[in-house]
Amino acid sequence: MIRTHTCGQLSRKNVNETVTLCGWLSIKRNHGGVIFLNLRDIYGITQVVAKPEKAIFKIAEEIKSEYVIKVTGKVVFRPHGNMNKDMPTGEIELDADSIEVLNTSKPLPFELSEYAGVSEETRLKYRYLDLRMPAMAKIMVLRSRIAGLVRNYLNSLNFNEIETPILTKSTPEGARDFVVPSKNAPGDFYALPQSPQMFKQILMIAGMDRYYQLSRNFRDEDLRSDRQPEHTQIDIEMAFVREDDVIKTVEGLMKEVFSYIGSDIENAFPSFEYEDVMLKYGSDKPDLRFNLEIQDCSDIFKNSAFKTFKDSLNSGSVIRGIKGKNGADFSRGDIDKMTALVKENGAKGLVWLKYKNNKFESPILKFLNDEEMNNLQRTFDLSNGDILFITADKPKKIAPYMGVLRNELIKKLKLKPAKKWAFLWVRHFPLLEWKPDENRYDATHNPFTAPLPEETNKFESNPSDIKSMQYDLVLNGIELGSGSIRNHKRETQEKIFSLMKYAKEEVENRFGMLMNALDFGAPPHGGIGIGFDRLIAIICAADSIRDVIAFPKTASGICPLTDAPSKLDDSQLKELHLKIVK
Amino acid sequence: MIRTHTCGQLSRKNVNETVTLCGWLSIKRNHGGVIFLNLRDIYGITQVVAKPEKAIFKIAEEIKSEYVIKVTGKVVFRPHGNMNKDMPTGEIELDADSIEVLNTSKPLPFELSEYAGVSEETRLKYRYLDLRMPAMAKIMVLRSRIAGLVRNYLNSLNFNEIETPILTKSTPEGARDFVVPSKNAPGDFYALPQSPQMFKQILMIAGMDRYYQLSRNFRDEDLRSDRQPEHTQIDIEMAFVREDDVIKTVEGLMKEVFSYIGSDIENAFPSFEYEDVMLKYGSDKPDLRFNLEIQDCSDIFKNSAFKTFKDSLNSGSVIRGIKGKNGADFSRGDIDKMTALVKENGAKGLVWLKYKNNKFESPILKFLNDEEMNNLQRTFDLSNGDILFITADKPKKIAPYMGVLRNELIKKLKLKPAKKWAFLWVRHFPLLEWKPDENRYDATHNPFTAPLPEETNKFESNPSDIKSMQYDLVLNGIELGSGSIRNHKRETQEKIFSLMKYAKEEVENRFGMLMNALDFGAPPHGGIGIGFDRLIAIICAADSIRDVIAFPKTASGICPLTDAPSKLDDSQLKELHLKIVK
Repeated sequence: MIRTHTCGQLSRKNVNETVTLCGWLSIKRNHGGVIFLNLRDIYGITQVVAKPEKAIFKIAEEIKSEYVIKVTGKVVFRPHGNMNKDMPTGEIELDADSIEVLNTSKPLPFELSEYAGVSEETRLKYRYLDLRMPAMAKIMVLRSRIAGLVRNYLNSLNFNEIETPILTKSTPEGARDFVVPSKNAPGDFYALPQSPQMFKQILMIAGMDRYYQLSRNFRDEDLRSDRQPEHTQIDIEMAFVREDDVIKTVEGLMKEVFSYIGSDIENAFPSFEYEDVMLKYGSDKPDLRFNLEIQDCSDIFKNSAFKTFKDSLNSGSVIRGIKGKNGADFSRGDIDKMTALVKENGAKGLVWLKYKNNKFESPILKFLNDEEMNNLQRTFDLSNGDILFITADKPKKIAPYMGVLRNELIKKLKLKPAKKWAFLWVRHFPLLEWKPDENRYDATHNPFTAPLPEETNKFESNPSDIKSMQYDLVLNGIELGSGSIRNHKRETQEKIFSLMKYAKEEVENRFGMLMNALDFGAPPHGGIGIGFDRLIAIICAADSIRDVIAFPKTASGICPLTDAPSKLDDSQLKELHLKIVK
Repeated sequence: MIRTHTCGQLSRKNVNETVTLCGWLSIKRNHGGVIFLNLRDIYGITQVVAKPEKAIFKIAEEIKSEYVIKVTGKVVFRPHGNMNKDMPTGEIELDADSIEVLNTSKPLPFELSEYAGVSEETRLKYRYLDLRMPAMAKIMVLRSRIAGLVRNYLNSLNFNEIETPILTKSTPEGARDFVVPSKNAPGDFYALPQSPQMFKQILMIAGMDRYYQLSRNFRDEDLRSDRQPEHTQIDIEMAFVREDDVIKTVEGLMKEVFSYIGSDIENAFPSFEYEDVMLKYGSDKPDLRFNLEIQDCSDIFKNSAFKTFKDSLNSGSVIRGIKGKNGADFSRGDIDKMTALVKENGAKGLVWLKYKNNKFESPILKFLNDEEMNNLQRTFDLSNGDILFITADKPKKIAPYMGVLRNELIKKLKLKPAKKWAFLWVRHFPLLEWKPDENRYDATHNPFTAPLPEETNKFESNPSDIKSMQYDLVLNGIELGSGSIRNHKRETQEKIFSLMKYAKEEVENRFGMLMNALDFGAPPHGGIGIGFDRLIAIICAADSIRDVIAFPKTASGICPLTDAPSKLDDSQLKELHLKIVK
């Protein structure tokens, strides 16, 4: 090695040793004729002293910011006043005897220490400078360490990491596939996988028993702020399992990851039926760091004099409410804004009741009797100073906008999170949803998800009522993973495709390999895919997954560093038998 | 879990326990009214007994090969005569009380136990059956374990695994890039990386210090028997290192891998200068399991009466020979074949000398004097019964065909390997080679490889003579890895591109990101890429890397399982602004 130690390694233990360090010149200061150099590498910073009486002083004078240098010298204690106990290397400095410039640097296009104001495009264009920021480097290291830990955890449970192809065939959601023209077969294309879904199921049918992969997945879509054309997923599949087996495996994995970053998380995550989570939180990915629940209060209004509610109940609607703790001082304007918000999300209206001095204030006060008011106070545990929002609607319609209201209340009331990390499972999503415009059913999540065994009798009578063995993993209000027990019986899989109105030929063309494999002894199996970029972004409190990917694309799919995508030569196009038509 | 144990887990320790196993019915035998079922999963095989007096007997009679079943029963000792101590589960059997068919199977298209005669295309089409073969499953597990071990070894040395993009820009050898049309930017294309070379160098410039990745690399080329359009590489790069630092890291890694498979390999691999290995073995990837060396014997013929040799020496040729131990009984026909072989590889002729009864026999005997014969006998350590082949040619021409002859002799003499694993390094390859047809120099390996510092003075005088800091790792005659210390100075990199006759614009277009990065404090760095598929194939003695890849393509780039590549819909082409022209 060119160096004997890294810039984060030396301490009082090394005093009097002669060492050689390499790194980047981070800061240079001239104090009374002595030059201090901060030498930086990914491991830390060591202070180097260049004394005027030494030959190297001239080099120290000449070197500039971000030059790469090699320094040999003796480790000495810093003078007492200059010790910095917060820094691992803060008690010592390197008294330089030799300084060699390994490489120079042009002046940087932006200061590393002040990159807050730098545009993301510039940061990405000069990613090699951006990643020198200790905060960015730390993310890359953490990501690598967590990937290692995920692998070791799964390896210890007898999982095998098996690489599935990146050049493959169009998948179910083919319209969003990236495609790759084949030179050997002009006119034919490979597709990049949106997920290894079918391959991992094939591996279960192949008897591989426990598979995982940190897989690269690709999706060509209009890029939203937190999507990337390629992303990494912890992809897991297990044979001979029930839902709980996958769930326990993932909980163990998350416990391992979070224990690494110093957080003890609960042993079993809260688990909700899809219907319940929609009722209680109005979302299938609620942020459970906040203890705020929506409650059903239909019963209270059974015999209400408030006609709107009574009529609603009679026509199959439900009435739900949510309490805003200490929200009784919301102004008319505040309430109008919330009403507008829920209306944008499909509500017909929103009723409010303030509770002050043991009395209600509300536009609907005149319709409420004492019993109803008492019941409301008790059901929502209202104290003086609280506000209550109520509305009536069909269950499927009311849930999402009450969820929006919940999120708004969390913000507006500045609720404090009750914990740092709130995991939960949402289970038993509907298997299918009716698409009136397309006159067919569609899989709510994944066409390979199996129905709950006791629900299969609804295939004929009421398909959209079938509950599935689908489970989503949610962390801090973000969907982190999605998985299910799969259909291992060909008949069930065919039934689902036929309800989705897939023609036989289409099934053969898109899912042929899986359908064929189901004929030859497919074991019961299930699994999950967990967004790895997202997991790291949440852990690092990054604004975007772009901050946790070494070389991400911009929101418009461009890499400012490489200038990808770019034009091809005519000869390349010719070889591919392609012509561009604008 | 549906099962309590796997099929490889039960032993005499479990006798009398009631357990549940799941697996595939592998073999069924009816012995005197009792049915024996071999239940298989990836962990092993357990024998299940179905007794005629039990209700499950009827099910046992009906189930067929490769049905997936779940069996509950009591673990019992096998009758003494039936114990199989070679099998982990060979002392026990499962006395079935319940058998549940979890899934049926159609009759298989080929018998799993007799797949030697099955075509590769059929095996790949039914890869889910092929992988059920214990030998194939074992490879997949071993591959996963070795990947884990590689990662843990490198992690322990402070390397970080950093994922580089798969959607990127055309690389140096652009003609072989797979390309991906962009929907968002019609007419623009991403390219799949042939290697993460430039990204890993960028990571070094970004200060990441030690990077690795089990990277997926892509190359669109006419597929040779042992090439795949995508392959996996252990990709490594380190900052502030010299050649020996990379070499030692890789040696430690290989030691770790081979110790896992039970082989202790030498601590430091033999290391050869490129020139020396070409002389001694006639190849830059010789198989050193065999102790057979080519030797220079030019000196012996300095004053030879054999005009051909003398003239050759005078015109700058060398004379080299190789001994065939116990080859004196080669027939005229054998020798003719060898002569034809070296001529195909560029030789003008081949001289042979047999040594029998302490005397030479040879067509050139009459030209040799006693001293020359004694010198030959001594130089090549000839014993009675040996044969010696000699020829004369220019050093660059003679080496390769003497290497071919060496390989032929190894086969013909049925030499026994002296060891199981023979690693070596070949170092200091020429940096550049002259391409007379193109009137330019080309990089012999990689345009980013740095020259040996002491050789840079030849840039002006004799570029093709410059030795580089390029090192190849060879195992059992196969090139396993290739690496180098890179150019971290922009001037040197530019010099090399200019000798390669790359125009400024071309350099900017292809290597712009790297060239720009070299301006901002690039540290000295180097690394290597090691073929992971190849490594596993060698370890498993697989005929092809296709046997160690879960879902490979055929030699013509087709996946018989998925039918990739395939046609796109017209609507997809339209969305991509592409038209196919035949």
